[in-house]
Amino acid sequence: MSLITVGTMAFDAIETPFGKTDRIVGGSALYVAYAASNFVRPVQQISIVGDDFPKEEMEELKRRGVELDGVVIVPGKKSFFWSGLYHEDMNRRDTLITDLNVLADFDPKVPDSYQEAEFLMLGNLMPKLQLDVIQQLKRRPKLIAMDTMNFWMESAMPDLVEVLKHIDLLMVNDAEARQLSGHFSLVKAAKMIMSMGPHYLIIKKGEHGALLFHGDDVFFAPALPLEEVFDPTGAGDTFAGGFIGHLAKTGDISFENMKRGIIVGSAMASFCVEKFGATRLKEITHEDISRRIEQFKELVSFEIELV
Amino acid sequence: MSLITVGTMAFDAIETPFGKTDRIVGGSALYVAYAASNFVRPVQQISIVGDDFPKEEMEELKRRGVELDGVVIVPGKKSFFWSGLYHEDMNRRDTLITDLNVLADFDPKVPDSYQEAEFLMLGNLMPKLQLDVIQQLKRRPKLIAMDTMNFWMESAMPDLVEVLKHIDLLMVNDAEARQLSGHFSLVKAAKMIMSMGPHYLIIKKGEHGALLFHGDDVFFAPALPLEEVFDPTGAGDTFAGGFIGHLAKTGDISFENMKRGIIVGSAMASFCVEKFGATRLKEITHEDISRRIEQFKELVSFEIELV
Repeated sequence: MSLITVGTMAFDAIETPFGKTDRIVGGSALYVAYAASNFVRPVQQISIVGDDFPKEEMEELKRRGVELDGVVIVPGKKSFFWSGLYHEDMNRRDTLITDLNVLADFDPKVPDSYQEAEFLMLGNLMPKLQLDVIQQLKRRPKLIAMDTMNFWMESAMPDLVEVLKHIDLLMVNDAEARQLSGHFSLVKAAKMIMSMGPHYLIIKKGEHGALLFHGDDVFFAPALPLEEVFDPTGAGDTFAGGFIGHLAKTGDISFENMKRGIIVGSAMASFCVEKFGATRLKEITHEDISRRIEQFKELVSFEIELV
Repeated sequence: MSLITVGTMAFDAIETPFGKTDRIVGGSALYVAYAASNFVRPVQQISIVGDDFPKEEMEELKRRGVELDGVVIVPGKKSFFWSGLYHEDMNRRDTLITDLNVLADFDPKVPDSYQEAEFLMLGNLMPKLQLDVIQQLKRRPKLIAMDTMNFWMESAMPDLVEVLKHIDLLMVNDAEARQLSGHFSLVKAAKMIMSMGPHYLIIKKGEHGALLFHGDDVFFAPALPLEEVFDPTGAGDTFAGGFIGHLAKTGDISFENMKRGIIVGSAMASFCVEKFGATRLKEITHEDISRRIEQFKELVSFEIELV
């Protein structure tokens, strides 16, 4: 089964308590692609870059089964650039620079060769563009998943509310779930958000794990307790890539299989944070991934007889 | 197997976003006793109260198999009183009033009838008094567990460091683990704390669940996502009571059984927060507890085949 991913491909400059980088490649669709391509191929990418985006990165993605027919390269323009600073607790970050560059004119087009895709992952992006991609698809995918962020709740809420009606699954973090729903309790927030369109909701809680809601069902997966979180940039997108990659690989969109997807996504995210940017994602093997998933099983498994 | 619990029995006045109470009964040893007595009897209590502490509460505890030979009632004096205000996120609270009253003169004595106890739960209290209780025991219990708080790290660190050398298991929250160890990473914090004495460490993360560490092993249990957390007062002590109650009931201090203890403790804590004070703990049946533990199993259970 193939997977379309939509989102940014960009340069990031990152500073954490452990070090700082110059411009390195990043962007929501880049992380999703690196994570998902471990499980499903092709990954059909839709994005936009300037002519400064490294050719070697494009080649590396292709080598991993990522199709780039939907990635527009704009001559003479620069790629989207983001710069941020993380504090010690890594849950807080300050944005230092946001240069939209080519992203300001992004008008995503779904190539004909992508039309048969059964899974669609809408990475964090202007809600209007996310909706535009959905509307270009001649056949509705089996599952449409979407990520978004507080910025769009503040600047484009009507568009966001509209796109929510067309998707199956939303992923947000806990603060965003509270902001979107107006409820502090995550259980109440989940009910409210699911009444706005998506029948499935994943609430990401960073180092505190992730919750999956569907009707009255709820599943929780922890984050792996790590000795050091080196750089959290892209962890949420990597989680999304692992999750949707697992679903697309298996073609199974049951709640039970989404649980497995959450574990796979959490395992992928736990690699992502170990080095700057997508560095670690390019190093890991299937064996590393299997071993990490085994660690998740050990972390939460218990046998109990009722009292 | 019997269990000794040491700690406060007190009055609390609590204000949360959902309401406020006048003086209601509380205290670390009270919550531990109400939780643990569902699993093991007798619970042998060591505490101190004034003559204002309700006789009916004493009778209720006795009815549940809590022995009060070690509870001193000081004539003409008042019980320990604490008053606090919770904010919306319930992880932050302001202490409004702390009247030590009888607690200022607490000199715990272990009754002869308690000397055979195999489990000891040292609730949050002055570290010097916790050590004193350990030293009064003629035969070392099978397991000594202890709770403490940031207040003692700031005011009695040398005493705290000393008592840590004599216990098997410490329970603290995440902020306290960081403060005690000087490490932000909880994995590093755990290693440091285990090098100070206790071979087992539980880090409580409130709504984000709890971690159990032992050597290189780690286990994680989530908190149940609740629609409403009404009053978190006593949740940590209730968790401790459920945990140690399960261990004492089974007599099994293996890591595997401690995992089960964490689930039992988390289930008990999830009841505690549903109403003010210990109200909910007095209402629940064994059937309620079994059903709640079943919910925990569902919350985290997944089957996964390796990729």
